[in-house]
Amino acid sequence: MASDKSQQFGEFDLINKYFLRNSLSNPSIDHHHEQVLLGIGDDCALLAPPPSDHMLAVTSDMLVENRHFFSDADPKLLGHKSLAVNLSDLAAMGAKPTAFTLSIALPHINHAWLSAFSEGLHAISDQFHCPLIGGDTTSGPLTIAITAMGYLPKKSALKRSGAKVGDDIWVSGEVGDARYALGIRRGEWPSIRPDASSWTKIALRMDAPQPRVDLGIALRDVAHSAVDISDGLLGDLQHILKASQCQAAIQIDQVPVSTQLQLESQAMRRICSLRGGDDYELCFTAPRQNAAQIEAIGRNLNLRLTKIGNITEAPISSSSNDAIHRMELIDQQGERLPLQEVQMYLKSFDHFDVA
Amino acid sequence: MASDKSQQFGEFDLINKYFLRNSLSNPSIDHHHEQVLLGIGDDCALLAPPPSDHMLAVTSDMLVENRHFFSDADPKLLGHKSLAVNLSDLAAMGAKPTAFTLSIALPHINHAWLSAFSEGLHAISDQFHCPLIGGDTTSGPLTIAITAMGYLPKKSALKRSGAKVGDDIWVSGEVGDARYALGIRRGEWPSIRPDASSWTKIALRMDAPQPRVDLGIALRDVAHSAVDISDGLLGDLQHILKASQCQAAIQIDQVPVSTQLQLESQAMRRICSLRGGDDYELCFTAPRQNAAQIEAIGRNLNLRLTKIGNITEAPISSSSNDAIHRMELIDQQGERLPLQEVQMYLKSFDHFDVA
Repeated sequence: MASDKSQQFGEFDLINKYFLRNSLSNPSIDHHHEQVLLGIGDDCALLAPPPSDHMLAVTSDMLVENRHFFSDADPKLLGHKSLAVNLSDLAAMGAKPTAFTLSIALPHINHAWLSAFSEGLHAISDQFHCPLIGGDTTSGPLTIAITAMGYLPKKSALKRSGAKVGDDIWVSGEVGDARYALGIRRGEWPSIRPDASSWTKIALRMDAPQPRVDLGIALRDVAHSAVDISDGLLGDLQHILKASQCQAAIQIDQVPVSTQLQLESQAMRRICSLRGGDDYELCFTAPRQNAAQIEAIGRNLNLRLTKIGNITEAPISSSSNDAIHRMELIDQQGERLPLQEVQMYLKSFDHFDVA
Repeated sequence: MASDKSQQFGEFDLINKYFLRNSLSNPSIDHHHEQVLLGIGDDCALLAPPPSDHMLAVTSDMLVENRHFFSDADPKLLGHKSLAVNLSDLAAMGAKPTAFTLSIALPHINHAWLSAFSEGLHAISDQFHCPLIGGDTTSGPLTIAITAMGYLPKKSALKRSGAKVGDDIWVSGEVGDARYALGIRRGEWPSIRPDASSWTKIALRMDAPQPRVDLGIALRDVAHSAVDISDGLLGDLQHILKASQCQAAIQIDQVPVSTQLQLESQAMRRICSLRGGDDYELCFTAPRQNAAQIEAIGRNLNLRLTKIGNITEAPISSSSNDAIHRMELIDQQGERLPLQEVQMYLKSFDHFDVA
């Protein structure tokens, strides 16, 4: 929409000040950016093609104020998280991050906010050698849209459709703390008041997720399928089961949770770890004979990798298309949970809920 | 942010119903999509690498309600325009569209709106053989973020920095009608009431811009530099002059305008064609000896291509960094316009103006 420039600090100034960096010509990180032939400042960015035996993985995520983050969220952590959630999708495919674009709508120009946001964004961009190559800035309700790209060898993608009957099901790290933090922040559980040091740990799991990029790359020829559990462990595992036309038996009390969450009731532990979203760990399936290799990867990356179940044959009945019939949840006594309880844990994250 | 799915029609239903198509397996268009190895439905989409002598062009644009389009905008035209503005950036680089991602925030699920929006989006996607491969949907203030990707041969990119002293400056199509339509729609010029058939033509220039993809591809080895004039002819030409460190002499009354705009006053014609944005034509520079070749391209594409000026040596004075000193605007009497008037036409579109 055409309109007049009548303010001193405009779109180009904003890009120059906060998003354009000389990193592409900085020798200390230059070797990571040989794929970027042209960055911010033209009609398009230009990337070198991947090696001919590779392909390009592309993922987009949008974060909206009061929907994905609170208005008073620390902008530096928000900058981190905005890119982290996209890198997590690349990780779940086994792709190595290459570059990303950022489109951002801002209600007004707040220099302190922009400075902190871009600091957090550039820090994780540097950490994963994934430079900002372009995008768009506009005025509007605070909205952050990132598209991240990465390369991976052909035939090595960790697709959701790759799970095989007999596969072990694994999960990285510990799950549930992001949901636990959200509940505490929202005051859902007024009786829970963690001490300051515990709260720092829990809150960081929600605010500063670490995408499992190195794990995704290490799993390329080891796992059959993978997904990142941004929408909750069971909700995302469903996608694998549906795409791979199979079933899962999950030992729910094997699901790894933090020492903080371990202190809570069984019900809260299960709600947070099975159904809570925003964890950005990887859930993956792999043949049983690769277990030792997977454990070695975990030791190598200093990352907890836990076997939580198995892929089983899908029932033939027509009702097998329902997610609820694709999951057997088994407790530590070896008992199967009733369907009603399974259903509750399967309710996954959805941005169009009306709650 | 984790929350509960408590509505029947959720994010996945929405994607399935409006955005996921079987086009990738539709034989009639399949041959255009050989680059797409995996589309919507996994953590990432997967694209085949371009030929090794090609590179990947990437561009992102964000459209925000009441900023880039009115709330009552026809959703089908909006679907068209959302992708068109990105394809226009690919065109300005000389890239052939390959695929795009869409992230969209919606205040609520309106099936009539979504149906029309996706119809318009898919129509232009088919027209340019550029399929939707992924993205994100969320609730929030209406915001549309698209990232489009395309391939082009190495060393053939039409960068902004490529203009050379002596180049002719060209523009495609006719410019100014988008700004003219906006003004009429806003009631800026109450005395102007075009008849229905004229209004249809003018409004379509604002609502349904045609990205000059074929022109961009044809200009790869013919032009030195190009830009799409989404932010106004002189405003965008500035980017070429700055990046190429040169100056321009523009014959402002040579700038091609529609028959409707020709009927208006000289002042309005100039305001709309020199400063008005949203036209999505290409402005490009090329060596004088390529003029006949460019005219042939225009005949071939049935697209008006008009020479409007020349690239000249930049002045050496320190003030030469100001855009105003990079432009000589010359009227039909051969007179240079005073600096004050140049400055007025240079005020380009900016989403952070406070007007």
